[in-house]
Amino acid sequence: MVKLREPIPVSEAINRVLEHVMPLGEEKVALEEAYGRILSEPIIATHHVPPFNRSAFDGYAIRAQDSTHASPQHPVSFRVIGEIGAGHVGDKPIGENEAYRIMTGALLPDSADAIVMFENTVETSDGFRLMEPLKSGDNVSFKGEDAKEGEVLIEAGTKIHPGTIALLATFGYAEVKVGKKPVAGIVATGTELLNVSDPLEPGKIRNSNGPMIQAQLDRMGIESKSYGMMEDDLDACVRIVERALEETDFLITTGGVSVGDYDYLPAIYERIGATVLFDKVMMRPGSVTTVALLGDKLLFGLSGNPSACFTGFELYARPAIQRMMGSTELFLPHMQATLGEDFTKANPFTRFIRGVWEMTDEGIIARLAGFNKSNAVSSIARGNCFIVLPSGSEGYTKGCQVDILLLGSEQGESVWRL
Amino acid sequence: MVKLREPIPVSEAINRVLEHVMPLGEEKVALEEAYGRILSEPIIATHHVPPFNRSAFDGYAIRAQDSTHASPQHPVSFRVIGEIGAGHVGDKPIGENEAYRIMTGALLPDSADAIVMFENTVETSDGFRLMEPLKSGDNVSFKGEDAKEGEVLIEAGTKIHPGTIALLATFGYAEVKVGKKPVAGIVATGTELLNVSDPLEPGKIRNSNGPMIQAQLDRMGIESKSYGMMEDDLDACVRIVERALEETDFLITTGGVSVGDYDYLPAIYERIGATVLFDKVMMRPGSVTTVALLGDKLLFGLSGNPSACFTGFELYARPAIQRMMGSTELFLPHMQATLGEDFTKANPFTRFIRGVWEMTDEGIIARLAGFNKSNAVSSIARGNCFIVLPSGSEGYTKGCQVDILLLGSEQGESVWRL
Repeated sequence: MVKLREPIPVSEAINRVLEHVMPLGEEKVALEEAYGRILSEPIIATHHVPPFNRSAFDGYAIRAQDSTHASPQHPVSFRVIGEIGAGHVGDKPIGENEAYRIMTGALLPDSADAIVMFENTVETSDGFRLMEPLKSGDNVSFKGEDAKEGEVLIEAGTKIHPGTIALLATFGYAEVKVGKKPVAGIVATGTELLNVSDPLEPGKIRNSNGPMIQAQLDRMGIESKSYGMMEDDLDACVRIVERALEETDFLITTGGVSVGDYDYLPAIYERIGATVLFDKVMMRPGSVTTVALLGDKLLFGLSGNPSACFTGFELYARPAIQRMMGSTELFLPHMQATLGEDFTKANPFTRFIRGVWEMTDEGIIARLAGFNKSNAVSSIARGNCFIVLPSGSEGYTKGCQVDILLLGSEQGESVWRL
Repeated sequence: MVKLREPIPVSEAINRVLEHVMPLGEEKVALEEAYGRILSEPIIATHHVPPFNRSAFDGYAIRAQDSTHASPQHPVSFRVIGEIGAGHVGDKPIGENEAYRIMTGALLPDSADAIVMFENTVETSDGFRLMEPLKSGDNVSFKGEDAKEGEVLIEAGTKIHPGTIALLATFGYAEVKVGKKPVAGIVATGTELLNVSDPLEPGKIRNSNGPMIQAQLDRMGIESKSYGMMEDDLDACVRIVERALEETDFLITTGGVSVGDYDYLPAIYERIGATVLFDKVMMRPGSVTTVALLGDKLLFGLSGNPSACFTGFELYARPAIQRMMGSTELFLPHMQATLGEDFTKANPFTRFIRGVWEMTDEGIIARLAGFNKSNAVSSIARGNCFIVLPSGSEGYTKGCQVDILLLGSEQGESVWRL
């Protein structure tokens, strides 16, 4: 007898998962280890940037007022009284028609308020001649123009990228407070599965979901432990799942969530006392995607079909992991694109099709990545996005505007819009 | 005396770099280590996918011809003669009005050509009744429908992402041939530089470029060795550069490439006998970006200004590194966007402005990431793209269509279009 499952919308399924996820807390890491982590404190400017008025070019520091009457006909002569390299400090203020030779980034000497670039001067025996007037502030980078002391520059919950590292370095963060990363457990189920290095046998296929999920986790910087492939014995399965849950922060299984005779996951959830949050979602592929909860640990029961497995990970596991790490941008970034070919199949459920987007002279075009069935694997390898086709009785034609979700981007969005 | 430098267009500068870059060769890595690497051999289907005709659902395998006359008024009865779980094989062919109970992914038994889903049957004592006819092939995944044996599925030179891993696993690649990765050397120059953990001093700033470049390399999966900050002594500098070049595949320096009195890089290139490929580019920030060549090793002389340094890395070092790794998609992906605010400064050189793109109801809008000078650091931390504003005597106004280059994306483009 097939138990009837109640399908829920994707947004509802995402909410049911996220309701049960909390950030794992924070830890300190060295700046060199911080790339890709999530800031768990805001970056606040601990000083002005620049910290002092500095020269924006190599040239001469002068008082602008001394140049007021300079012109090609009446050049003004300046006497150079010293030199200031970056990181050095002039020891005396400049007086009338005096100048310091000064390098990019160097602190302006007292009473100087403008920089003449070398190329706009003519050298003399003790200095230079200037043919045009300067205004106060010309070619000066002013203290605090980039950032003011106390300003919140980057919010907590933001992913650390190379630009963030530059800012952290500027303010002297040799260590950074970041969100702790979860450790994932992976179990592949399916009596048809061979190991990757096994020769093919009749009726069998190699386990591609396990390595794929590991790479999806890799891409997020998440460490995973593989618990191999599950046997055909319920007791043994329960022991593997219990052990994995003890040793990791959440568990991803592939396969075993459908209504087949060997789909053990529902029985496992029951045996270990896990609460099923949902076991049917209004999406294709992956409508049988199941998520359960035991204590504070999530069990993602992804489909055994490769495309469905991939999609289930990106839609449900990914935002949960982002939140565990403390991120506020949980979801895949979305864009609008023009559908590059017909997709005429109707569908009661929203489709997430493996697609390829590219910028063309006609704007962003999204095409199908190839063969599209839930058990397809070639199209996952070719795709760089999901094309989202909402449910409806009619298909979609070339030229439609559709939403796409970008894969493999450093970015995220804080709201699920689809 | 300031030596006049001849500025060249960005595309020409990129070409001059790439002319001197060859892939470093290939190596084998375990599948689990292959994420993010570049395939150095195409993925060719070593067998059909699926490798056999298989059931797409949990249900019953029948001969479609036996169901031709089935209707609610005249249901057709089938006798179940056995069961085939995924990974198992039926031991006898089915005859007239016979069926196998069969699970998703299982090999179809001989003479079966259609699958009836459980939910469309009514159980009987020895089998089931069927109310509607099936066509040959219904609910069957056919051998080779996803990929045909011998088909080239993914070209060499492609980045390995999780979908690629799934495909490699499917075909039994426990090891994968990938491009070797280069090791980078990093040297920061500038007498104004403090270490990240140092307290601020008058006239000095902390070294933010070194950690930033390390993170830019991290983002590409590239290991780097830091040679610290260069001293103010030309001989010592030459020794550091020579040592770094011995120990790494290419060198990135920051600072010292301008025309200031302490800009040692030109002198260092001369002393070690490196050929300068260019030392002035028609771009802002980073017009002083310099690239030199010694033997087959590139020396990227990036500006000491953070924004200019960041931009120089992404425009010149990144494509060179991609090629060293064997990638055919060397360049940052581009999109078109609507400029979200005025940028009225004219400029003789193309500007690469740190920007933030986002999808809105009005399409993709790109705004400035904040304060934009070549020495700015806050805007690098906030940006997710470069807004490219070609040179011209007038500025750009809100609503213009502009090109943007995406940062932090797994994707690339094979042609530089700007």
